[in-house]
Amino acid sequence: MINDEKLLDGRAVANGIKEKLKSRVSVLKERGITPSLVTILVGNDPSSETYVRMKGNACERVGISSKKIHLAEDTTTEELVKTITNLNEDDSVHGILLQHPVPSQIDERLAFETISIEKDVDGVTSAGYGQTALGFGTYPSCTPAAIMRIMEDYDIQAEGKHAVVIGRSPILGKPVSALLLNQNATVTTCHSRTRNLASHVRQADIVVAAVGRPEFIKGEWIKEGAVVLDAGYNKGNVGDVEYEQAAERASYITPVPGGVGPVTIAMLLNHTVDAAEKTLN
Amino acid sequence: MINDEKLLDGRAVANGIKEKLKSRVSVLKERGITPSLVTILVGNDPSSETYVRMKGNACERVGISSKKIHLAEDTTTEELVKTITNLNEDDSVHGILLQHPVPSQIDERLAFETISIEKDVDGVTSAGYGQTALGFGTYPSCTPAAIMRIMEDYDIQAEGKHAVVIGRSPILGKPVSALLLNQNATVTTCHSRTRNLASHVRQADIVVAAVGRPEFIKGEWIKEGAVVLDAGYNKGNVGDVEYEQAAERASYITPVPGGVGPVTIAMLLNHTVDAAEKTLN
Repeated sequence: MINDEKLLDGRAVANGIKEKLKSRVSVLKERGITPSLVTILVGNDPSSETYVRMKGNACERVGISSKKIHLAEDTTTEELVKTITNLNEDDSVHGILLQHPVPSQIDERLAFETISIEKDVDGVTSAGYGQTALGFGTYPSCTPAAIMRIMEDYDIQAEGKHAVVIGRSPILGKPVSALLLNQNATVTTCHSRTRNLASHVRQADIVVAAVGRPEFIKGEWIKEGAVVLDAGYNKGNVGDVEYEQAAERASYITPVPGGVGPVTIAMLLNHTVDAAEKTLN
Repeated sequence: MINDEKLLDGRAVANGIKEKLKSRVSVLKERGITPSLVTILVGNDPSSETYVRMKGNACERVGISSKKIHLAEDTTTEELVKTITNLNEDDSVHGILLQHPVPSQIDERLAFETISIEKDVDGVTSAGYGQTALGFGTYPSCTPAAIMRIMEDYDIQAEGKHAVVIGRSPILGKPVSALLLNQNATVTTCHSRTRNLASHVRQADIVVAAVGRPEFIKGEWIKEGAVVLDAGYNKGNVGDVEYEQAAERASYITPVPGGVGPVTIAMLLNHTVDAAEKTLN
């Protein structure tokens, strides 16, 4: 049995964020502004449809307007770029989210880069990443932001700790490494070409799993007392970390589901409201 | 005595780059284009003046036009930004280098960010950093680019190696960490808040020293056979690594001077010629 005191309860963190958002949204609406997120879905990937629906529902529950644009499977890069450009120019839109993956004929990176940095509430542009990494970014990617928010809410300090991040994707492994580094952790970034992954994980005070492979990180690799943040979400409702075994050794651990996931969505909403508030100035 | 076979000879690498640049510059000039770098120096810091002069002389030796703009010590951020904006708009200028540090009344980051990414041959903008870190950047910062170039010329593979970078500045520690990661090294970034630095360095297959403190990295920390790249250059002509002792253990090591420094300048010239060649398209 896992000690409840160890649990990093993402749902509770997310609810705390959403409660505050509701009152911020009320203030905005009194001033004539409805925060607005537009999500773009290209093609018919069922799990992407689910994600987009979940995000839309979450928006509505805090009073954010959520518009979905559903483009056909055979959309071209040019058409997608045009859609994004129009949204960039639309003052009633505060945030733009392009659900990925997109169909293979599309240049995904070019599409991401088209999103204007002021509306990049999902934190996918290289410009946003560069600002985040250099310490003055506005909207880091939502999952890295969620991980940092969970740590903050549970008063887990990164300073002086050795953080080991497994994964180096542009929206997860790389930016979470950057955020931990900026909070004065010593950061090791591991990935598919890392030799002897176990030896790196065994040294970590903070483990961030961002691989996308079920139970890839073994519980016995976790150092006694380490903090485990599992951003994985794989088929069968399991994370990237062998949960039960890891929980025995960890001082804190995020469950899957109910850990990083709900906070990721809350951060997306938070960024959208931030973007709407900026239009007041 | 240090075995010459271990030496990573930066002067030789730099000379190789510069020889190729001369012929590229000739081709450009035949087509009516003289590659042009403008360096901006603000105030009267003697070592900054020396650096700017060295860069200017290096430009001239390969046929790049080098113009120096020397602004007064009491220049405002606004004045500096205006100077940069004018250079951004001047088609005859291919590269802009703002020598730092700038006097304390100036918002250095804002000034850097003003440089247009097409002319950011020194790799100081956050946008350029973001592109570099996500793997499609054009002009990484020159010292990180130099370190990668030295490794390439000596056929030192990063793939699967454990690289430990000591330093996290925006133009050195962070981008060199990113470049090594993109070449499939497992990367640990250490800094002033790192606990037990020695234990990290002892594990490294590749050590990049980017601290700016003389002989801060002890020779006895270096693992037998490790590659040591010392980007430090401190008073008394010493690097960040205890050279003699490190060289006994390393398989390869950059001397100071004559290691990373000359290649850094060559990369600046290389980026400037790249930028000039882009105007042909």
